[in-house]
Amino acid sequence: MDFWEVVRNRRSCHRFLDDAVEEDKINTILECAGFAPSPANMQPWEFIIIKNKEIKKKIFDSSLRVKTEMARASGWSWLDRYQLHFLIQAPLIVAVVGDPLKTGIERWQEGRGEGYQHACAAAIENMLLAAHALGLGSLWFTIFDKPEVSKILAIEENKNLIALVCLGYSDDHTPRPKRESLQEKIIKILD
Amino acid sequence: MDFWEVVRNRRSCHRFLDDAVEEDKINTILECAGFAPSPANMQPWEFIIIKNKEIKKKIFDSSLRVKTEMARASGWSWLDRYQLHFLIQAPLIVAVVGDPLKTGIERWQEGRGEGYQHACAAAIENMLLAAHALGLGSLWFTIFDKPEVSKILAIEENKNLIALVCLGYSDDHTPRPKRESLQEKIIKILD
Repeated sequence: MDFWEVVRNRRSCHRFLDDAVEEDKINTILECAGFAPSPANMQPWEFIIIKNKEIKKKIFDSSLRVKTEMARASGWSWLDRYQLHFLIQAPLIVAVVGDPLKTGIERWQEGRGEGYQHACAAAIENMLLAAHALGLGSLWFTIFDKPEVSKILAIEENKNLIALVCLGYSDDHTPRPKRESLQEKIIKILD
Repeated sequence: MDFWEVVRNRRSCHRFLDDAVEEDKINTILECAGFAPSPANMQPWEFIIIKNKEIKKKIFDSSLRVKTEMARASGWSWLDRYQLHFLIQAPLIVAVVGDPLKTGIERWQEGRGEGYQHACAAAIENMLLAAHALGLGSLWFTIFDKPEVSKILAIEENKNLIALVCLGYSDDHTPRPKRESLQEKIIKILD
């Protein structure tokens, strides 16, 4: 599988087929997560594998409530059309949980201590890329009530639920959303 | 370039050769950053390209002070042996800057609003992988005084310096640090 194809063509998947994800593919995806860098190589990520339909339904119900509330609070009208059925459809959701104590030396700096979250995000990006390389669709989902979903998943209070990653075979045929040009993103060159 | 080779064998580089990084490689790396997902596709990342030796020296001096202070505060004795010369050696440092307003709907949730940081971290992971695929070494560096380095780089006050990414041809021949087993990282299976 060509690296450039993977990084360029991965996209968020909002519709999944029913087909289960093979165990070896799940393991490969999580193994790739673990190859991400982390401050002092502390590997602050932990994974909860969710296949249980009732739990997925609870997450869906909770997230639908959040989405509805946030659509009102934000005034983002497109959220009304944004369906969350992928939370039920996806055969597999991986909750990525971070350990705030497994962060870098910035833990001792005022207003810092976020390194473990960034490492978890890097691990998630590896998961999404690996999923694409294995022919799977994925979605990095964050519109959830963190305390409520943490309770549903019985996550320890000293840990931080970073994201839910939906995984499965894709039934989403919409094109990847456009990206801004590099010229807009390079804000300064100091040479 | 094989995706699995890239994701498995990328590692942090702490020693760089003098050779400059070709312009087309810099652009490819930043283009790959931009393929990361972000909440509502807001692409919250911005890049400052740093080649200027005086600016690199200023960042080095400031970071050395931070490292020394943090070594004392943390009691992490290995930090005494951790040299920061890569900040001067690396022909190129990319400062990745995030825009807190370009975050997801979680902006309206109490205690949230971190989505833009996670997206920047995903973009950084893409940069590191792309660098490896292009035969370059990279380092995700975070041991800096954020207000001070933001001032050195004249970053707008409403933006957030997420990380400094050192890039260049590698002169680091140490092996990749070990990873914990998957069994230790999968904390729960809900099926």
